[in-house]
Amino acid sequence: MSADEGGSIPSDYEIAQSVTTKHITDVVEPYGLEADDLQLLGEETAKVELEAIERLREEGDPAGKTILVTGMTPTPLGEGKTVTTVGLGQALNQLGEDALVAIREPSLGPVFGVKGGAAGGGYSQVLPMEDINLHFTGDLHALTSAHNLIATILDNHIKQGNELDIAVNWINWPRAIDMNDRVLRETVVGLGGDVTGIPREDGFILTAASELMAVLCLADGLEDLKERIARIIVAYDEDGDPVTVDDLGATDAAAILLKDALKPNVVQTIEGTPAFVHGGPFANIAHGTNSLIADEVAAHLSEYLVTEAGFGSDLGAEKFMNIVSRFGDVEPDAVALVASVRALKYHGQDMWPPDVDALEEEDVDAVYDGLENLEKHVRNLQQFGVPVVVAVNRFPQDTDAEVEAVVEHCEDELGVPAAESTVFAEGGEGGIELAEHLVEAADAESEFEPLYDLEASIEEKIETVATEIYGADGVEFHSDARDDIDRLTELGFDDVPICLSKTFHSLSDDASEKGVPEDWTLEVNEIYPSAGAGFLVVLTADVLTLPGLPAEPAAESMELHSDGSISGLF
Amino acid sequence: MSADEGGSIPSDYEIAQSVTTKHITDVVEPYGLEADDLQLLGEETAKVELEAIERLREEGDPAGKTILVTGMTPTPLGEGKTVTTVGLGQALNQLGEDALVAIREPSLGPVFGVKGGAAGGGYSQVLPMEDINLHFTGDLHALTSAHNLIATILDNHIKQGNELDIAVNWINWPRAIDMNDRVLRETVVGLGGDVTGIPREDGFILTAASELMAVLCLADGLEDLKERIARIIVAYDEDGDPVTVDDLGATDAAAILLKDALKPNVVQTIEGTPAFVHGGPFANIAHGTNSLIADEVAAHLSEYLVTEAGFGSDLGAEKFMNIVSRFGDVEPDAVALVASVRALKYHGQDMWPPDVDALEEEDVDAVYDGLENLEKHVRNLQQFGVPVVVAVNRFPQDTDAEVEAVVEHCEDELGVPAAESTVFAEGGEGGIELAEHLVEAADAESEFEPLYDLEASIEEKIETVATEIYGADGVEFHSDARDDIDRLTELGFDDVPICLSKTFHSLSDDASEKGVPEDWTLEVNEIYPSAGAGFLVVLTADVLTLPGLPAEPAAESMELHSDGSISGLF
Repeated sequence: MSADEGGSIPSDYEIAQSVTTKHITDVVEPYGLEADDLQLLGEETAKVELEAIERLREEGDPAGKTILVTGMTPTPLGEGKTVTTVGLGQALNQLGEDALVAIREPSLGPVFGVKGGAAGGGYSQVLPMEDINLHFTGDLHALTSAHNLIATILDNHIKQGNELDIAVNWINWPRAIDMNDRVLRETVVGLGGDVTGIPREDGFILTAASELMAVLCLADGLEDLKERIARIIVAYDEDGDPVTVDDLGATDAAAILLKDALKPNVVQTIEGTPAFVHGGPFANIAHGTNSLIADEVAAHLSEYLVTEAGFGSDLGAEKFMNIVSRFGDVEPDAVALVASVRALKYHGQDMWPPDVDALEEEDVDAVYDGLENLEKHVRNLQQFGVPVVVAVNRFPQDTDAEVEAVVEHCEDELGVPAAESTVFAEGGEGGIELAEHLVEAADAESEFEPLYDLEASIEEKIETVATEIYGADGVEFHSDARDDIDRLTELGFDDVPICLSKTFHSLSDDASEKGVPEDWTLEVNEIYPSAGAGFLVVLTADVLTLPGLPAEPAAESMELHSDGSISGLF
Repeated sequence: MSADEGGSIPSDYEIAQSVTTKHITDVVEPYGLEADDLQLLGEETAKVELEAIERLREEGDPAGKTILVTGMTPTPLGEGKTVTTVGLGQALNQLGEDALVAIREPSLGPVFGVKGGAAGGGYSQVLPMEDINLHFTGDLHALTSAHNLIATILDNHIKQGNELDIAVNWINWPRAIDMNDRVLRETVVGLGGDVTGIPREDGFILTAASELMAVLCLADGLEDLKERIARIIVAYDEDGDPVTVDDLGATDAAAILLKDALKPNVVQTIEGTPAFVHGGPFANIAHGTNSLIADEVAAHLSEYLVTEAGFGSDLGAEKFMNIVSRFGDVEPDAVALVASVRALKYHGQDMWPPDVDALEEEDVDAVYDGLENLEKHVRNLQQFGVPVVVAVNRFPQDTDAEVEAVVEHCEDELGVPAAESTVFAEGGEGGIELAEHLVEAADAESEFEPLYDLEASIEEKIETVATEIYGADGVEFHSDARDDIDRLTELGFDDVPICLSKTFHSLSDDASEKGVPEDWTLEVNEIYPSAGAGFLVVLTADVLTLPGLPAEPAAESMELHSDGSISGLF
């Protein structure tokens, strides 16, 4: 976020360098993790051993309250959900509450495209920020390897006689890479004659988009990990029956590659709050939240867990409540909904394509005009029976009049508590009021409930999310999607949650529509099972699963100095 | 190696599990590395910080003697060079000498193909063996990422306007993967229309075959790493001029990904001898030895360094002496030449294709017939002025008569010391006599010298190795190779060492020829610069840079148990 934050605050990297971190064992010890519970990776990073997690489970149910951080429909730069999550954890600790933070683990690929890290920013960031944004603990590399091992075994199976009768044109397991390498989106593999096997069309996806990432983020232990991997559908045979990872005999080998990746990573925020940074699935074709196992550990160790979901209430938060909460013991007790003056003006000005620089000028009227988007997100979250607090993440160019307009509107018109958050510039201290609202909200009796029953038909579930959350009039199923529904129902995949893939630029399926789009129908093109994750993916448009680099990639301005320090990464 | 070692010795994994390892800080402390010198990765593995290496350099030149382990022309299963290297280090320590071990770092990809690890075996292995054979410290992943980042930036450069005028059909930088995924050998990328860029033929190589691996293994620090990366030639422009990584602006970004990978990994052998396991370049298109920086650190810390070169005296050892010794302060003081009864019978029976099971029966005559291959390797090594000791690595099925035949022949006919080695079955104790011979040899005055002058022409250097080491009558340069020589001489790349790529199955360029092939001419097809590594690669045949999986991959019989233990990996 540094580029947007003006000149008065040092860069994220400068702030990070100015902090003396504690040894990670000292960071987590007050929360009940001993040195033996950790696999140390340097002095600032550790993985929590699975034995320790078992011990915590045996000691009783997790007692911590879960505060979920989500956002309104954002500008393309994001409105500071991670910053707010980190800052809120710090603020709770400043208030004397026990709090932990859990956020998603960044991918390596995007780091070389656009400058800016994914570990918070300013005085609300997670350290060691360079490691977290580079190889970190190797989880992404392990996922890439496991994903590609399955692909390798699949093509080898075909070459060695194709005993499973796999239909070569019905393979649903591309290869994976953690690099924004767009020329790998569509490829032909297996060229070079008989020696290499059967030529076929193939492609690569970003590792974060692999079903294995979703699986890792939902598994509660090694056995569950193996069961989920086993049932992943990688292809169909000539009779149209699913071919799974287990059919290929690859379950254990893939799980062996992931056995350490499953252990949650723990680091610290700039104020010494323990932070789990573990797992980072897409928030459209997957559920978009950090690992369930990290959330669970955190809820065992602390009174409050602050965790984050990708994009807005229509994407990550909806999925957290309708998908994740069903798979694990993590119900949200309160939601912090991040808004920004910038995003409100973006909606108020009905701006498309985005021109974020144009949003710097004060424009209270535009803020007011944008509030309907924020309100819709509030109402979406309230449908789940969960209390909402609006966090106005303040940027340097925001004026008092703009910020006050938002806070007052929330409290007076929407009837929800709201607070300005200045955690970027001030750390936890800038989130005290927000934290107080959230403690109050989370301590109230929870009436949380998912929005649909699993027993409802696939169509009904999709219609519920489309109309109740997105605000569509209804759903149009294209003929391929109808066929998918028939086939999936026949295969018995109709009693699972649904994971809708939709643009994050709008509440609707049309990126150009700001505010609260009305009079529209959600178009569904394709539905496929993520059988390992345990949900159906519903595609409403093409999803970009392998981004590219811009004309001037961030990589070009990076520098490695002879003392090992880096510049240009953030 | 476990499969070949009979039933009397427990499996490698069982042996590994039976050992209580020391904390790695305690392992290296007696050698002069403090806790602060290490980046700990768990309790058994560490990286040596570059600051510590600088400190050692400032304290003076490395005083340790270097013992290089190489082998005769092996069977496809290998004759136990790594086992001998590890066992010899242990034996030296049992003798009361200070000794360290340095070996290559295994690739992940091959682990899933054929059962068997690459960290020694039996009672001469390096621990933690599962980690070392899986993700270990992430060096291979870092190399894969850095390699593919350069490829990504290259294709992005072309898509964004191709300012450097790169000739799309003259790109010499494939993509890399650490997986035996043969369908990626030959691919077409960039399909899908304008959005993804220019379609072109491409391919993947195994990460270990990347020039970045060679670069990492020759760099002496971050600055040297950057300089080497910068000058790597990735393509030629339309005028035929080289396009380097630096031209792409990717040097620092790639170096940032490799900054931790450059730090040598240190672990321990089963008897607690510190072992550097760092870097693993191919021994045909690259120099085939572990990192120079690991060798250098080891020689600073200890009286003896035992290190290993890939394949036989004609490949890894020749390259260690003609290439590596010129780039760093590592001259071999003695060579341990590993022979096996099995390999001698293989040569004596002129066996091709290999049928290793057929070599189990006692056949002293065949052993005698095979000795000419061993003798040629002895003479090859002696040409460099370095003392040679033959190590007969004993397998369970070998008879006393067979082993004695070899030892006696070496001592009586070849005039070199020899000893049976039983380090697989007995650990260091099984290598005491060998170690005594090597101490004596290494302590003699060194007369080491590389075989050719760098000032000699490219042809002369190739002819020297072909005739003096391989035993060819001469060299035939195909017309493409002649063009390459002219072009490389014009570009000024003629005063560097040469790295010949040749089959390891024979001293000649014909894999089927056993013993000491005579009356043959080495055919050279292509020569290209590894400008970052600093040598020319001379291809005598197609090189398989991306292997495939067999019909029944080892992956299928691997098991991950609920306590995190593994079976089927070894």
